[in-house]
Amino acid sequence: MSKMNKELENQLSAYISNLNAPMIIKEAMDYSLQAGGKRIRPSLVFATIRSFGQNEMEGMSVACALEMIHTYSLIHDDLPAMDNDDLRRGKPTNHKVFGEAYSILAGDGLLTYSFQVIAQDPKLSNDKKVKLMELLAISAGPEGMVGGQVADMLGENKSLTIDELEYIHKNKTGKLLLYAVKAGAIIADATNEQIDILAEYAENIGLAFQIRDDILDIEGNEETLGKPVGSDVENVKSTYPSLLSLHGAKKRLHYHTEKAKECIKTLNLHSNLLEEMASLIEVRDS
Amino acid sequence: MSKMNKELENQLSAYISNLNAPMIIKEAMDYSLQAGGKRIRPSLVFATIRSFGQNEMEGMSVACALEMIHTYSLIHDDLPAMDNDDLRRGKPTNHKVFGEAYSILAGDGLLTYSFQVIAQDPKLSNDKKVKLMELLAISAGPEGMVGGQVADMLGENKSLTIDELEYIHKNKTGKLLLYAVKAGAIIADATNEQIDILAEYAENIGLAFQIRDDILDIEGNEETLGKPVGSDVENVKSTYPSLLSLHGAKKRLHYHTEKAKECIKTLNLHSNLLEEMASLIEVRDS
Repeated sequence: MSKMNKELENQLSAYISNLNAPMIIKEAMDYSLQAGGKRIRPSLVFATIRSFGQNEMEGMSVACALEMIHTYSLIHDDLPAMDNDDLRRGKPTNHKVFGEAYSILAGDGLLTYSFQVIAQDPKLSNDKKVKLMELLAISAGPEGMVGGQVADMLGENKSLTIDELEYIHKNKTGKLLLYAVKAGAIIADATNEQIDILAEYAENIGLAFQIRDDILDIEGNEETLGKPVGSDVENVKSTYPSLLSLHGAKKRLHYHTEKAKECIKTLNLHSNLLEEMASLIEVRDS
Repeated sequence: MSKMNKELENQLSAYISNLNAPMIIKEAMDYSLQAGGKRIRPSLVFATIRSFGQNEMEGMSVACALEMIHTYSLIHDDLPAMDNDDLRRGKPTNHKVFGEAYSILAGDGLLTYSFQVIAQDPKLSNDKKVKLMELLAISAGPEGMVGGQVADMLGENKSLTIDELEYIHKNKTGKLLLYAVKAGAIIADATNEQIDILAEYAENIGLAFQIRDDILDIEGNEETLGKPVGSDVENVKSTYPSLLSLHGAKKRLHYHTEKAKECIKTLNLHSNLLEEMASLIEVRDS
């Protein structure tokens, strides 16, 4: 996937530099886009398309849009009124560099631009574009990521049940991961039945992703992670380890990973990239 | 238009109550949507469709989406990091009622949901939906409203030229007014030539709208306006009256209004609603 990752970085840069907008907002958008995450959402888009034997480049606009949405959510989450974080991946957060007002606008700009990028893709049909934009809005908005973020805030300093915790993660982080896989499948002309199975795969890796996150906050290495560990315990946050014990959380992580892989096995795809992604998520250390 | 305005209020309420999301975010979104603005953008959508002899109801989803975008921009503009306003139209601003974090998310939610509302409209074709969403993103994002907001911030405490002032207003407020008219024309199957003339109309009423705003900050009645007057002078802000004198600003307001009406006269439309809108904007007192 490293060729695709390079294409992704180039395309993200091109999208920003092509914008006819004041320089400061382009710089603020670009700063966080280039802050170097794992690009897991774009990788899922590409892996899904490839699994159907299609050309990953067809998913480039959607992969970039998805990374813009993810980035906007991090910029807004880091604001003083939200998590008030000064560092992200070892670098000063957006508002520490550009000030709060430009950060709010950079987030708004990335969110809005993500729809423009899909709408203007010359390679996708209008029928696909409408499906992709509808699903993106559902996944990122009040019925998805924004709703999950709200539920997370409502749950602060409360002891949650495992169901409440799952609601938060299925929406806050899960819906964009689900979108990545579903969008790849739509682009690759998967059948509805195949999309349903892929959705089950994606929901399982989404939960696995979050459980791994909670485990890394206990066992992870600060330098590899690029952020301090132990913050969940410090903030008395409900997590999988706090509700299930560390051992129980690891069991559950393995369960969701295996379930995700089983889904893929029923599909008879052109590659085992999606199974590999599930394995990577189970053992990731950053 | 009063029947349509009632339909609009009902539809806006329905869109929020249909959302499957935590109650607090629905309340925060609804609070500002119901804060009772002039609904000028929806009125322009409906008036344009009616001017082509078509059914205004075809524009309902776009009119609601547009009002959601306008409302999100007010919520984010009022935040402490931006204009830090406690009151809007005589009511406490969103963050004064719900707190900053939920206000940021309510704005993000409204912005994202606006695309969902258009994408899920059962009455519009996919070809129209893509055009409408592309144009909405361009008009609201870094190349439109967000870019204008940034330019406005960059211009604070500087004396601007009339061209710089026009750039700000053409983007900050003008692009959404332009969108309202263009979107109505797209829905009504106007020709590209007709859309170009309507765009010229919309640009002129957009500037007229802003000049009238500047004049009302000098001559307006605080009670009718629902906001204090004299704030531009207090903030040493570049405005049309400060650059052109009050008399010069009034002349320019009249010039743009007349130019807008001339555009409409060349089109041989089914009604004179758009000319009436231009006249209303010239003399509005709130």
